[in-house]
Amino acid sequence: MRNKGIPTMDVMGYAAQSATDALAPFSFERRDPRHDDVVVDILYCGVCHTDLHLARNHGGFTTYPLVPGHEIVGRVREVGDAVSRFKVGDMVGVGCMVDSCQQCKPCLKGWEQDCAEGPTFTYASIDRHDGTPTCGGYSDTVVVTENFVLALPDGLDPAGAAPLLCAGITTWSPLHRWNVGEGSKVAVIGLGGLGHMALKLARALGADVTLFTRSSGKEEDAFRIGVNHVVLSSDPAQMAVVAGRFDVIIDTVPYDHDVNPYMPTLTLEGVLVLVGYMGPLGTPVNAGGVVRGRRAITGSFIGGVPETQRMLDFCGKHGIVSDVEIIPIQQINEAYERMLRSDVKYRFVIDIASLKS
Amino acid sequence: MRNKGIPTMDVMGYAAQSATDALAPFSFERRDPRHDDVVVDILYCGVCHTDLHLARNHGGFTTYPLVPGHEIVGRVREVGDAVSRFKVGDMVGVGCMVDSCQQCKPCLKGWEQDCAEGPTFTYASIDRHDGTPTCGGYSDTVVVTENFVLALPDGLDPAGAAPLLCAGITTWSPLHRWNVGEGSKVAVIGLGGLGHMALKLARALGADVTLFTRSSGKEEDAFRIGVNHVVLSSDPAQMAVVAGRFDVIIDTVPYDHDVNPYMPTLTLEGVLVLVGYMGPLGTPVNAGGVVRGRRAITGSFIGGVPETQRMLDFCGKHGIVSDVEIIPIQQINEAYERMLRSDVKYRFVIDIASLKS
Ligand SMILES: [Zn+2]
Ligand SMILES: [Zn+2]
Ligand SMILES: [Zn+2]
Ligand SMILES: [Zn+2]
Repeated sequence: MRNKGIPTMDVMGYAAQSATDALAPFSFERRDPRHDDVVVDILYCGVCHTDLHLARNHGGFTTYPLVPGHEIVGRVREVGDAVSRFKVGDMVGVGCMVDSCQQCKPCLKGWEQDCAEGPTFTYASIDRHDGTPTCGGYSDTVVVTENFVLALPDGLDPAGAAPLLCAGITTWSPLHRWNVGEGSKVAVIGLGGLGHMALKLARALGADVTLFTRSSGKEEDAFRIGVNHVVLSSDPAQMAVVAGRFDVIIDTVPYDHDVNPYMPTLTLEGVLVLVGYMGPLGTPVNAGGVVRGRRAITGSFIGGVPETQRMLDFCGKHGIVSDVEIIPIQQINEAYERMLRSDVKYRFVIDIASLKS
Repeated sequence: MRNKGIPTMDVMGYAAQSATDALAPFSFERRDPRHDDVVVDILYCGVCHTDLHLARNHGGFTTYPLVPGHEIVGRVREVGDAVSRFKVGDMVGVGCMVDSCQQCKPCLKGWEQDCAEGPTFTYASIDRHDGTPTCGGYSDTVVVTENFVLALPDGLDPAGAAPLLCAGITTWSPLHRWNVGEGSKVAVIGLGGLGHMALKLARALGADVTLFTRSSGKEEDAFRIGVNHVVLSSDPAQMAVVAGRFDVIIDTVPYDHDVNPYMPTLTLEGVLVLVGYMGPLGTPVNAGGVVRGRRAITGSFIGGVPETQRMLDFCGKHGIVSDVEIIPIQQINEAYERMLRSDVKYRFVIDIASLKS
């Protein structure tokens, strides 16, 4: 007999034991499925910058051991008796959240990321029912309430689909929020994990798509993923050419940077959306850059469960996945170092089968 | 016989002759009306912070002599033969702009403030037809192309209506842009010329209206003009009470200030709109304040001619005017000093009849 909700299921994973330790094999337990839980055999897990930041305690609030990973694709192994939307054998995804209050106004709107009580994140969070720390997708199994499990459309490569669960929804949500569609002019700052997803999604939505990059030499890669124009942001002449051009700029830069030079490239009432950085903007923001032309500096943080499903369905229809480099989990520490050097096109994805090797 | 468009009409006004001279009587000429011009006998002219900034060359680009004034109410004295919307004797207003290209996309949308070639401002600008400097409403007469003349609704006090032409439209435009109406929750930072108009307009639009103020003692005045709540922004406890409350914040602060403390008081997807300051925001803007909750920092600059007319019509219907202190033009220099001390409730308006005394 199974003890519903009690941590008794043996799981193999990789964890950080401190801010300075390399990630290493780690055995732990997950709960046996509650009535509403789905048990997922993890096949692939994408590697997000957040994984590295939390593993190394850049925010100062990490507790250890930490099992990172929130770009999870897998197959349903088992379902609780109240689960209706999934059955054993289904291909599914799990993203940045595994639970929320599900009763507040934001939750009822499908904005679980804005839950008034705070959502339960996939790792480095506390399960709101049993108080245990949540553990992420650098592991062979995850147990998640049905409402936070996404259906993976048929035909999507499961490894390439994994980064859709964080990088995909993080860029899809603002594109949708700001009505990007046929004929929109969208620019994306940065060609990394987030940036390349923003570019692919905006293009598939019908937008004319520009990449802003600080360094030349990105053109070939950019054009290969469908970008229409590449603008060197360090070249004032190129910046002047695109003055007043963009309806939406998705700013994926993951560190402090100067947003002022981009503001005049927005159309009247255009918006610059920060998605990669949450800290202080050290270069003073020029108020004139928003006052003239009613431009806006805004931001976006992952996305809700219903819109994540819509994004996945859209990607299934348009055959959109992330460009990935698949690694065995034993290479995760090296992958972090390469990620810090932007030496990846454009997302590492862990083949979880490697855990058994 | 009149020489159409040639400056031969004698006008009496007040001008600054340098950044350090007090404003003093000044005689100059205006053009005889072109076919599309309206000649206005000025009755009242509001005193805007911009007048003082330009008179004292705070921006470094003022040319002298400078005749300020862009909150003009008067009566039509004469019209060009092609003028169809106005006739002699009509009460009219003239705001911050007197012309634009009238052919670009923004102009055709009624966004003359965003004219691709730049609008012609009412003063400190260059007439786009004859190349002469424009002169403002601190004078007995103004000559303006019909398209930039506003009809003043019957029954509005003409002195109180004058500030609607700048302070009114500057706050109306973002309220309209961000869909403020019945049930909206609006906050206004600052109780000055702009702030008291924002509060009155938002209230009349059906919003629940809050004043953010840095100093206590404003409650009585605020409640008198219809404010529902007053929040002391320097009191963290009061700020915490309004967390997540406002759909729109109109930020009228005319100098550098820290916008970060206001961001958490916005609802999800709420917007803070800068209308009083165009310089650098010296306190680093926290990107997390816009990323979490998809909040936005935006701005707004005066407003277009059609929306200015709609604002005036709304004010006519709801009996909304500015709270003014009427002064003879001989007191303009003292008024500037008092304005710098915020010693006015809430706008000085010059009685132009005083020019003849
Ligand atoms: Zn992530
Ligand atoms: Zn909730
Ligand atoms: Zn003004
Ligand atoms: Zn124009």
